[in-house]
Amino acid sequence: MEVEIVENVLKYNKSHAEENKEAFSKNKVLALNILSSPGAGKTSLIIQSLKKLKNKYNIGVIEGDISSTHDANKIKEYTESVVQINTGGSCHLNASMVKNALTKLNLEDIDILFIENVGNLICPVNFYLGEDDMIVLASVNEGDDKPVKYPPVFIKSNLVLLNKIDMFELSNFSKDFFLEKVDQLNPGVEVISLSCKTGEGLDNWINWLEENIKLKKTNIT
Amino acid sequence: MEVEIVENVLKYNKSHAEENKEAFSKNKVLALNILSSPGAGKTSLIIQSLKKLKNKYNIGVIEGDISSTHDANKIKEYTESVVQINTGGSCHLNASMVKNALTKLNLEDIDILFIENVGNLICPVNFYLGEDDMIVLASVNEGDDKPVKYPPVFIKSNLVLLNKIDMFELSNFSKDFFLEKVDQLNPGVEVISLSCKTGEGLDNWINWLEENIKLKKTNIT
Repeated sequence: MEVEIVENVLKYNKSHAEENKEAFSKNKVLALNILSSPGAGKTSLIIQSLKKLKNKYNIGVIEGDISSTHDANKIKEYTESVVQINTGGSCHLNASMVKNALTKLNLEDIDILFIENVGNLICPVNFYLGEDDMIVLASVNEGDDKPVKYPPVFIKSNLVLLNKIDMFELSNFSKDFFLEKVDQLNPGVEVISLSCKTGEGLDNWINWLEENIKLKKTNIT
Repeated sequence: MEVEIVENVLKYNKSHAEENKEAFSKNKVLALNILSSPGAGKTSLIIQSLKKLKNKYNIGVIEGDISSTHDANKIKEYTESVVQINTGGSCHLNASMVKNALTKLNLEDIDILFIENVGNLICPVNFYLGEDDMIVLASVNEGDDKPVKYPPVFIKSNLVLLNKIDMFELSNFSKDFFLEKVDQLNPGVEVISLSCKTGEGLDNWINWLEENIKLKKTNIT
């Protein structure tokens, strides 16, 4: 019976996700679901992206947290299109929460929507939100063994970001080991290394974003 | 109906946790449930503790991961009493998994049992395993806002460890802010700052362990 309920929850989630997907398609919004451990730098990545692109594109942000508006307040300095979702303890966003949040955003005017998921490498992976891409953000300080210890998020993500590369020298992080393990789990997946602090590598991420916005805008839906 | 099932799961968990607690009591084992984000340093903390105390006490380790034996292999260099639990995707240990793992350890011969939970600041909090103390390990690289963003684990833990303090200079971590927020959530809770890398502050943790082993051994159960 428990299994049946889990299946029902996922089925229910999927139908909402499909509605979100349709809304993103119709409005040609590039929707990105960003996953990471707590403190890996999701909010910093979004702020850096806003700084670089806010004069060129309209960017919306959905902030997912179990409680508080701590990150949303930081992001409000860069865009007015921020919606906070407090999950009330739940360890991941679901498509229904995102659907509700979308009613507070004017999708017609948005080019990119960052969905910052709850800081958690495990639970959010199973809940499709209707996004174009699931992106995992790892950070050097967490160690090079994260793909070994948390395979599903690396298997399912369409892009892997490695943040805090300014910390390479101070850590015993082996980039080769990390890349090898990521590639074993998700052959050919693109990995972009960057530092939100020093700005190194950020241009590659910005290029990725611009290419993907272009694709989204030109797609015949 | 879903709520009822969740309640049943927690009730079922609690009865196993009580059995574990009784086993720890009977054998005067100090059992510690260690929670953190991925990569905060749980395994390093356990290895440092083994290095400092393995000639004085018998130390057992239960390693919780969604998959792999990566950490257990590292720990095996320091103690033979290691049991790996692979949760098969689940985001936390539960008392029943720990109960099964205990059948593979000789509790009569163990003084301290480290239970390294799955790397996750949210889900493990609700699953009591029968431990003496729940300990949260935060790390400087995650930022000083973790208590604001993940309150329950800081509210419920009996001890807060702050790891990677050798990174203070390179981060904008405010120790005052962190301590203030922790104290608001859990007034009076002890916080020990340390670096598993440089060894700074480790003695305070070792003292805490030795005091608590002493208490456990002299407790009339």
